[in-house]
Amino acid sequence: METQQFFIPLWLDLTAVGLGGVQGALFASGFRGQRRLDLLGVALVGIVMGFGGGMIRDLLLNEPLRALQSNWYLIVAIAASLLGMLLAGPLTRVNGLIVGLDAIVIGMFGALGTSKALALGLPILPAVFVGVAAAAGGGVLRDMLMGLPIAIMHVGSLYAVAAGAGCIVLAVLDLFDVPLFIGGIVCVAVTAVIRWLAVIFDVSLPEQRMLYRRKVATETGMLPVIRN
Amino acid sequence: METQQFFIPLWLDLTAVGLGGVQGALFASGFRGQRRLDLLGVALVGIVMGFGGGMIRDLLLNEPLRALQSNWYLIVAIAASLLGMLLAGPLTRVNGLIVGLDAIVIGMFGALGTSKALALGLPILPAVFVGVAAAAGGGVLRDMLMGLPIAIMHVGSLYAVAAGAGCIVLAVLDLFDVPLFIGGIVCVAVTAVIRWLAVIFDVSLPEQRMLYRRKVATETGMLPVIRN
Amino acid sequence: METQQFFIPLWLDLTAVGLGGVQGALFASGFRGQRRLDLLGVALVGIVMGFGGGMIRDLLLNEPLRALQSNWYLIVAIAASLLGMLLAGPLTRVNGLIVGLDAIVIGMFGALGTSKALALGLPILPAVFVGVAAAAGGGVLRDMLMGLPIAIMHVGSLYAVAAGAGCIVLAVLDLFDVPLFIGGIVCVAVTAVIRWLAVIFDVSLPEQRMLYRRKVATETGMLPVIRN
Repeated sequence: METQQFFIPLWLDLTAVGLGGVQGALFASGFRGQRRLDLLGVALVGIVMGFGGGMIRDLLLNEPLRALQSNWYLIVAIAASLLGMLLAGPLTRVNGLIVGLDAIVIGMFGALGTSKALALGLPILPAVFVGVAAAAGGGVLRDMLMGLPIAIMHVGSLYAVAAGAGCIVLAVLDLFDVPLFIGGIVCVAVTAVIRWLAVIFDVSLPEQRMLYRRKVATETGMLPVIRN
Repeated sequence: METQQFFIPLWLDLTAVGLGGVQGALFASGFRGQRRLDLLGVALVGIVMGFGGGMIRDLLLNEPLRALQSNWYLIVAIAASLLGMLLAGPLTRVNGLIVGLDAIVIGMFGALGTSKALALGLPILPAVFVGVAAAAGGGVLRDMLMGLPIAIMHVGSLYAVAAGAGCIVLAVLDLFDVPLFIGGIVCVAVTAVIRWLAVIFDVSLPEQRMLYRRKVATETGMLPVIRN
Repeated sequence: METQQFFIPLWLDLTAVGLGGVQGALFASGFRGQRRLDLLGVALVGIVMGFGGGMIRDLLLNEPLRALQSNWYLIVAIAASLLGMLLAGPLTRVNGLIVGLDAIVIGMFGALGTSKALALGLPILPAVFVGVAAAAGGGVLRDMLMGLPIAIMHVGSLYAVAAGAGCIVLAVLDLFDVPLFIGGIVCVAVTAVIRWLAVIFDVSLPEQRMLYRRKVATETGMLPVIRN
């Protein structure tokens, strides 16, 4: 852990937590499900989006959770959630900012995850995996808590691809002895640009063809029941 | 771990597991979804409610899972689930008992989580966070397994607030050198009373206003699709 | 960890990852929900099914995640997912193979989980628990990511029973000093045969009777809202 303190300065980790918290609360404020979220639910989404990436990273790495080593993480996450709730009204028309924020948060969690994994001596592919899991994990937890379809699983979301590209670039730069800090900045830039371009040009991955019949799933006792 | 054995006696941990197991099985027995739970499903919910809080606590603290250190945890959790299933019929009219049990279980997991975190030297806010996660986590896992909306996210549930209040009181008492055991009892009492009052007076948190338009979410590629 | 390398050879772990990945991608390819999975989503399900069991095992045991110690795990999981996608078409009529694969994967993750837990000195019941969680956990994660009802919770799925029987046999054989490797083979065989018989004879566990009224759940503030 001591060495990690060097690689991930507290202010950088807290910045990711704060931006994630704002973005999560903004997102949750817009939710209109069958059962509405209360204020606590919105705050919880903000906290989960702020904390989730770092927690998943540290759980996968079997390291003590950094978010629990200092009071600052919760203070920042809660303050960011409140800020997100307050901004939810005025920012309605500022979609670009929200998308931009989201892309940067994904990039930051990816960079922090991959850097920490590399610093702990993990091989390159697992390090990229940890980065992608940290980048996408907060959103997966958010969707599970809110009862939404998991965004990264469905057509139209290039989250994981953007995060993966950024993390791979970071890992390759590290192979060539580029300092992690510079690699991290490049990672965030690559991730954010891919994500922005995907939104702007409405790019999506092709669907898997429906070649595998539903009947099969039924007969294997694993019917993919559709919630309509 | 050795020092922890002192702070959380086995019988106390097992009591929380047992009460959680009974409550979980009672709850699951009442489930009428599109696809019914089988006996194993009901038992699993009981085990998850008995185990979940302690497991989440130990995972967050990066400690060996206590529930896996002894045969007793599974024996108690399974026996409690069976008891819950048997009681599901006769207890139909004894709602007060069920609500009361639920409130006490939440309080106990909160107290055990916060105590252990404080004993391990965590700062006060993360210790409260661990307590709330331990208190609410079992229910979140239950709802995920059963395909229900996550209860603590929605209007009308003051779980997390009740658990948070209890855990904060415990942490503050600890600051003033009150023994953890006494603080724990106060924590359970505070949590249970708040939860009971919320049920009795039907208190709920206000909703987040719908100021943030759905359109935004759509354009960010994160449409909160509603399962109706 | 060094001793564990002895108990679980890399090729064996990778075989489980590979078979799980193929099975997961086959399953996901057949999904027809409201929102279709894209190629990445299908690949993610394959990776989750390949990785999930081992990760849950190592998280529960508070051990470093083996899947992150070598590049091979991700290579195998991704290759297996691609293979599963390619096979999804031709294999439509070969249901027996799919069911058979599923049963063997469950058995392998159960055997690997219970063996590792026993090797680490856990008591017999927790060791069986870890095995069942490893065996069933990948499927639970898959269902959560895909937004499906969690298969092991519902009538008609004898996954956990099959895995539990296999793991118990392995643990009992270990008590009598039968080598773990032989116990593991027996565990896989027992699990697979029970699972196959359950599919062939369409066996299911009885439902929990609906003795516990819905009204109770409503009044406790925990209404099991039904998604129809």
